[in-house]
Amino acid sequence: MNITPDVFPFSAIVGQDAMKKGLLLNLVDPRLGGVLIRGEKGTAKSTAVRALADLMPGLHVVNLPVSATEDRVVGTLDIEHAIREGEKRFEPGLLAAAHGHILYVDEINLLDDTIVDALLDAAAMGVNTVEREGVSYSHPSRFILIGTMNPEEGDLRPQLLDRFALSVEVGGEREVETRMEVVKRRLAFDADPEAFRRQYAREQTELYHRILSARERLARIEPADQLLEWTAKVGIRLEVDGHRADITLMKTAMALAALERRTCVLADDMVEAASLVMPHRMRRRPFEDGAYGTETIKERLGDLLLEAANVR
Amino acid sequence: MNITPDVFPFSAIVGQDAMKKGLLLNLVDPRLGGVLIRGEKGTAKSTAVRALADLMPGLHVVNLPVSATEDRVVGTLDIEHAIREGEKRFEPGLLAAAHGHILYVDEINLLDDTIVDALLDAAAMGVNTVEREGVSYSHPSRFILIGTMNPEEGDLRPQLLDRFALSVEVGGEREVETRMEVVKRRLAFDADPEAFRRQYAREQTELYHRILSARERLARIEPADQLLEWTAKVGIRLEVDGHRADITLMKTAMALAALERRTCVLADDMVEAASLVMPHRMRRRPFEDGAYGTETIKERLGDLLLEAANVR
Amino acid sequence: MNITPDVFPFSAIVGQDAMKKGLLLNLVDPRLGGVLIRGEKGTAKSTAVRALADLMPGLHVVNLPVSATEDRVVGTLDIEHAIREGEKRFEPGLLAAAHGHILYVDEINLLDDTIVDALLDAAAMGVNTVEREGVSYSHPSRFILIGTMNPEEGDLRPQLLDRFALSVEVGGEREVETRMEVVKRRLAFDADPEAFRRQYAREQTELYHRILSARERLARIEPADQLLEWTAKVGIRLEVDGHRADITLMKTAMALAALERRTCVLADDMVEAASLVMPHRMRRRPFEDGAYGTETIKERLGDLLLEAANVR
Amino acid sequence: MNITPDVFPFSAIVGQDAMKKGLLLNLVDPRLGGVLIRGEKGTAKSTAVRALADLMPGLHVVNLPVSATEDRVVGTLDIEHAIREGEKRFEPGLLAAAHGHILYVDEINLLDDTIVDALLDAAAMGVNTVEREGVSYSHPSRFILIGTMNPEEGDLRPQLLDRFALSVEVGGEREVETRMEVVKRRLAFDADPEAFRRQYAREQTELYHRILSARERLARIEPADQLLEWTAKVGIRLEVDGHRADITLMKTAMALAALERRTCVLADDMVEAASLVMPHRMRRRPFEDGAYGTETIKERLGDLLLEAANVR
Amino acid sequence: MNITPDVFPFSAIVGQDAMKKGLLLNLVDPRLGGVLIRGEKGTAKSTAVRALADLMPGLHVVNLPVSATEDRVVGTLDIEHAIREGEKRFEPGLLAAAHGHILYVDEINLLDDTIVDALLDAAAMGVNTVEREGVSYSHPSRFILIGTMNPEEGDLRPQLLDRFALSVEVGGEREVETRMEVVKRRLAFDADPEAFRRQYAREQTELYHRILSARERLARIEPADQLLEWTAKVGIRLEVDGHRADITLMKTAMALAALERRTCVLADDMVEAASLVMPHRMRRRPFEDGAYGTETIKERLGDLLLEAANVR
Amino acid sequence: MNITPDVFPFSAIVGQDAMKKGLLLNLVDPRLGGVLIRGEKGTAKSTAVRALADLMPGLHVVNLPVSATEDRVVGTLDIEHAIREGEKRFEPGLLAAAHGHILYVDEINLLDDTIVDALLDAAAMGVNTVEREGVSYSHPSRFILIGTMNPEEGDLRPQLLDRFALSVEVGGEREVETRMEVVKRRLAFDADPEAFRRQYAREQTELYHRILSARERLARIEPADQLLEWTAKVGIRLEVDGHRADITLMKTAMALAALERRTCVLADDMVEAASLVMPHRMRRRPFEDGAYGTETIKERLGDLLLEAANVR
Repeated sequence: MNITPDVFPFSAIVGQDAMKKGLLLNLVDPRLGGVLIRGEKGTAKSTAVRALADLMPGLHVVNLPVSATEDRVVGTLDIEHAIREGEKRFEPGLLAAAHGHILYVDEINLLDDTIVDALLDAAAMGVNTVEREGVSYSHPSRFILIGTMNPEEGDLRPQLLDRFALSVEVGGEREVETRMEVVKRRLAFDADPEAFRRQYAREQTELYHRILSARERLARIEPADQLLEWTAKVGIRLEVDGHRADITLMKTAMALAALERRTCVLADDMVEAASLVMPHRMRRRPFEDGAYGTETIKERLGDLLLEAANVR
Repeated sequence: MNITPDVFPFSAIVGQDAMKKGLLLNLVDPRLGGVLIRGEKGTAKSTAVRALADLMPGLHVVNLPVSATEDRVVGTLDIEHAIREGEKRFEPGLLAAAHGHILYVDEINLLDDTIVDALLDAAAMGVNTVEREGVSYSHPSRFILIGTMNPEEGDLRPQLLDRFALSVEVGGEREVETRMEVVKRRLAFDADPEAFRRQYAREQTELYHRILSARERLARIEPADQLLEWTAKVGIRLEVDGHRADITLMKTAMALAALERRTCVLADDMVEAASLVMPHRMRRRPFEDGAYGTETIKERLGDLLLEAANVR
Repeated sequence: MNITPDVFPFSAIVGQDAMKKGLLLNLVDPRLGGVLIRGEKGTAKSTAVRALADLMPGLHVVNLPVSATEDRVVGTLDIEHAIREGEKRFEPGLLAAAHGHILYVDEINLLDDTIVDALLDAAAMGVNTVEREGVSYSHPSRFILIGTMNPEEGDLRPQLLDRFALSVEVGGEREVETRMEVVKRRLAFDADPEAFRRQYAREQTELYHRILSARERLARIEPADQLLEWTAKVGIRLEVDGHRADITLMKTAMALAALERRTCVLADDMVEAASLVMPHRMRRRPFEDGAYGTETIKERLGDLLLEAANVR
Repeated sequence: MNITPDVFPFSAIVGQDAMKKGLLLNLVDPRLGGVLIRGEKGTAKSTAVRALADLMPGLHVVNLPVSATEDRVVGTLDIEHAIREGEKRFEPGLLAAAHGHILYVDEINLLDDTIVDALLDAAAMGVNTVEREGVSYSHPSRFILIGTMNPEEGDLRPQLLDRFALSVEVGGEREVETRMEVVKRRLAFDADPEAFRRQYAREQTELYHRILSARERLARIEPADQLLEWTAKVGIRLEVDGHRADITLMKTAMALAALERRTCVLADDMVEAASLVMPHRMRRRPFEDGAYGTETIKERLGDLLLEAANVR
Repeated sequence: MNITPDVFPFSAIVGQDAMKKGLLLNLVDPRLGGVLIRGEKGTAKSTAVRALADLMPGLHVVNLPVSATEDRVVGTLDIEHAIREGEKRFEPGLLAAAHGHILYVDEINLLDDTIVDALLDAAAMGVNTVEREGVSYSHPSRFILIGTMNPEEGDLRPQLLDRFALSVEVGGEREVETRMEVVKRRLAFDADPEAFRRQYAREQTELYHRILSARERLARIEPADQLLEWTAKVGIRLEVDGHRADITLMKTAMALAALERRTCVLADDMVEAASLVMPHRMRRRPFEDGAYGTETIKERLGDLLLEAANVR
Repeated sequence: MNITPDVFPFSAIVGQDAMKKGLLLNLVDPRLGGVLIRGEKGTAKSTAVRALADLMPGLHVVNLPVSATEDRVVGTLDIEHAIREGEKRFEPGLLAAAHGHILYVDEINLLDDTIVDALLDAAAMGVNTVEREGVSYSHPSRFILIGTMNPEEGDLRPQLLDRFALSVEVGGEREVETRMEVVKRRLAFDADPEAFRRQYAREQTELYHRILSARERLARIEPADQLLEWTAKVGIRLEVDGHRADITLMKTAMALAALERRTCVLADDMVEAASLVMPHRMRRRPFEDGAYGTETIKERLGDLLLEAANVR
């Protein structure tokens, strides 16, 4: 028996703009590289991920539980079949199931190291290769990696942090109106999920079409040299090594423009992209605990912001 | 052979009002989200949980022992059947057995992390999904989660704390009369359980009908905007993030009203709800060790209490 | 082949009055709740436990070794039978064997936590429930729990301490005469166990009949209200939470009276009961290491002792 | 194939009088309770143990290696036989093999705790009881327990220390003559073991008969009351709790007298016995690291030594 | 199904000269002894290794994942075949697959010690020997060992460090132009891998032929005595023990000359070789954290540099 | 398939005199007791051990890898044979294979404790005894134990240290000429192993005959009393307990004389023997880290050196 719980509509999520933007950008460019959502308990991180998949027909969420074994993740040999039929058959794992979909890891900072290795390998190559008892098997494994973590419960290794294209911080709302709205909608959804979903059907469809047209538009955006140069300067200024950051910064700015129904990248796209791409890649200085927010990024970029305004 | 020990009647429990209220509220609204009972050894926590289930025909307690394996909790494949019959069959676990019942975890703070993960996943979705050897199986899993813990033996992770709708503190009685009454009743029950139960039969029946009518009444209570607003302000004032706290506060106040045979939520309901819902969600400040009692909550709410008195 | 070593007679044990009293009280009231014997190496704790069982025909000691597995303690499925006969059969464990007998745990402070859980569950319910591969099996499991520990090798968790009705301290004798007598008897027993046992046959029989008549007498003792009140005051004064302590104090005083061939509880019974029941339940204050002896209890009870003298 | 290496003759061991005496006493009274040999590497502890067994025809050494499993020590079910023949059969372990022989544990301080438990149980009861899959099996298990340890590599738990009747310290010789003699004999033995053994054949036979006649004599020695009293006083003076120490002190003094071809216990026997029995049972005071030697014992006994001289 | 992802061309890698040189030298002299690449996340280490293999037809990369078991690495018995056919057959592992190819270990500092042992043994002997159940099997196992590590995540044991002929540090580029070029090329490759590869086809072919002719040339270079002497002096000056360093220094200088299309070793070859061979073999002095760069090496060599200029 | 790599000739090893002497002495007297080689990485320890075995026809090196299991080392039951043929058969382990050969343990300080136990037992008795499932099996196991360790990676337990007859320190050469020669020979060997071996064939044969005649000569050397006395004095002076050191010192001096083609032991033999036998057996004093070299030994022996000169 398999049952599916009703899903809260993405359009009905109140506030949490950075998280929603980070998630949508990965729909616009599914090869962007995923998003890491950092926040305290009870901030509806899981709800948002399920809502995201619900936006696109046929996209589903593959859940990678913290307690999953390596065999379960990468796949293994089907022992039962081998014994009964005398031939080896590959039993695909979660990385196979996640191909073309979302791979969701709740509390990713508690994940076992061997699983992290398998994730990194597949994410880097777009291919998952398994070798068991002399048989080698590989299959494509491209997925949108979404991880969540509660920073109170320990941090991620830098190696894994860097694999996430984007990271966002979610926190509790501090506005009475917003909180009221959150609760109202949740109560309404809990009371009658289907009626609630009908109420948001139109907004959901609009959002779906906005993503589709952004995908088309993105294919037409060429990275201008000015943008490339600015990107390189940002990386040097923030002391972020490696070309992965630069490329992601580039691609994020382009996806942002496409989502905003433009084919040219504006200065604002670039600053917003920097606030999604750079904070989790910057080295912590002594006595700096928290993540870097948009304000810190802006402050450290300084004159590069002015320069961005002139880029076209 | 299966034997059932006699159960101490819920109505015969002396004192411990907060614990009894927390338990009853979960009968009034079984989707409220459970209760965590914190207290020292010997304070009859287990007795109260068994007594609660005994109130409602057909409700039973599923005990999740600290030493349970993950397979035992979430279910697994029936290996014996697979070998004999050549087909895979799912062997349900405690989460299946607990569906529609109480899931009771004594000393929940000593529970293994992988079990905690499984509990959280099922509690969040109302569905338990198991994947083993390429077979995926899911079944509904809605249960009243009741945990107990002795705070002297280590604390719960914030992630798990937040999953409990309510938390209550139980302590030893300090009144001679009350203690005498506790002992008298216990001795009487131990001497002749059946006679003792007959003595409380009428009170038990009344309590049963009170819960049934509260359930009907609850369906008719609409959350007023004033109440919603007050709820949001309380969350902001106590710096409790996430909408889960707000919604629970709301629902608890409504269930309290229903249990008190009212269809309107009064200021007292709201303050009592806050003392059940918020303490275990508040961040500890340095040098604050214990849990927050009703008095601390009231003090920090301050003017919001007056405001509550005006809500209707 | 099964062989039984000869047992040293209970009546021949020299000194160690508190330990002997604690053991005998559990024979007078087998549901009292066991006894924890704390003492250094070489103080004949095991000898006394075996001697106790030897007093009552058909009572035997089930030894729970520190290295026992959980399956061995709670029972498990008989795999061999399942494979050969194709049906599941329950293989009972030590908790089944101990039903109606003594369950003895030497060095209980070194016991594994999962075993402790199983012990606590069975002790609390009088029932042991085992679930394995979808089969649930339960059987009655009421036993006299006797634990020993050497306090030099680490302490018990408060949760487990509280499960013991009584606790006694054993130490080395400081009187030359007593020590000589201990050694003389032991040498005589080692030299010719059967002759030694014949020598104490009459004392053993008298003790056996004294226990039998105490059991009858106990059924006729009613707890007076004055005694109940005094009991509650003692709990409050010593800051011992939970009704388990109060009830045990009550029952112990009654069993002491019965053992002394009385049907009325005297002040002395109450003070002696308090020294057996309360010390291991009192919270340690800073810089208080050892257990509380009778003297400390008396001192802290103060005026309640005078009051006890007036109770009837 | 089974081969037996040649054994160095006991009579050819140079020096190490305390160790040799401790070992021989256990041959005179095989129920005395074993000996613990403490000393640094390279002090021929293993050689001495093998030489001891070689003295008595049919006595052999059962070696309990530090890496032995519990099944190997206590015995287990013969799975192979159960599968092939359909009936359960007990497969005896080292404790069965050691019955009536020497059980030798080199580096006993590195032994696993579960093995230590099994050893203690068997040593205390003279019986080894094994329960596996519902079958209980017991067999007599009386053995001379000889343990060695290098105190540089960690100490024994007090619980295990107390189980050894005697303990001796071995150290390197400081006399040139003695060391030369040790080396000479060893080189001679290594060059031609059989010739060397022939050389000591007569001394070996004499020692064998001395042990046999000491055993007979021991049966005729009665513990005098004066000796018993002195024994008790020594225990009290040295603050050694438990009757095991007193009884062992008693028996050791008697075995010493028997070995010295006497039937009366002299003061010297008693002081020598105390230096073998008491040191490892005395509590260490702060800043006291090493073991207590004969001198320390004598000093602390003080006037009791004079008293001993008057005992008969 | 087996799929191969497209490979970024080696010639298109921007900057990172030391890493590229270290990799190429191992193609020129495949028995040189591998290279360890140390650098932070995101510095394209994996990309470069795959690109290297892509240069030479038939050379492939065998990936040794951190989570690999010892059996997987060294090979094992084919149990399935043994059961079905009744004869033992060896199932080769990664060391067999890597023979004549590249063995690549990402995050080698996180590798398990037993795997490290197996690697070291095979690397030292050029032979991998496996013994399982009485069968011994050995096969040639010569491979180019390439390891990468992020020094933030812990260091390598000296024993393993020394097995790498060369080590290089990779870091982020600090030049805007370079960074722009890196990103441009990566975006172009990601957009159309095949077109991008066509664009670099000629450079790749040239590089391939340069390696082939360097191999031939290397066979003709004889180590001059002056060079040998200088090599020995460098080892003594830098306090690097062992002949492995000297020989590697020698061979690296010769491979460098060959790669530069010369048959005589120049002073520059020797200094460059020293900066690749010596840093990871030098003992860290207190307060020296980082690796030794070319500058430090030069400074410590001092007058030996002048001497090098005169070597021929 | 089984392949044998070419072996570097022992006579071609440059320098490292102490190590070479320590190895050769074990060929002269194979029961001397092995040698422990302490030194940093890259000092050709493994090369020397393989070269040693290559000297004597039919002597081979059995490699005990750090990751070996206990079953692999001591041998085990052949399960496969037991199932197929219905009878138990012993499957010999490395200790059987090493009988009459060299047992080589690289990085012996990282070896697991249970393996160390097995090694010690076999080394002490010259016999390896295995007991599995009721079957006892023993076989002779005399081997030359050669261990290597890098002192930077942790030390050996004193118990194991003492089992090695000799220990030597190897370090990097500090002479330019020597280092040049090492590298030259290594390069020549790597270029054409067979030609290189032909070049040293005569020296190898001479060394072989020198060992053979030393073995014969050794049988004729008798330990003089003066030598024995001096040996005992050295042990006392250096505070080395146990007769094993004395005997080894004796035997080493005799083997040294025999290797030098003499039948009388000279003072120089004795001092050289002391520098091989005593350092690893001496207790470290506070602030003494390194091993004791010949100089330290000489200094502490002082007047005993003069005395040695007079010994004959």
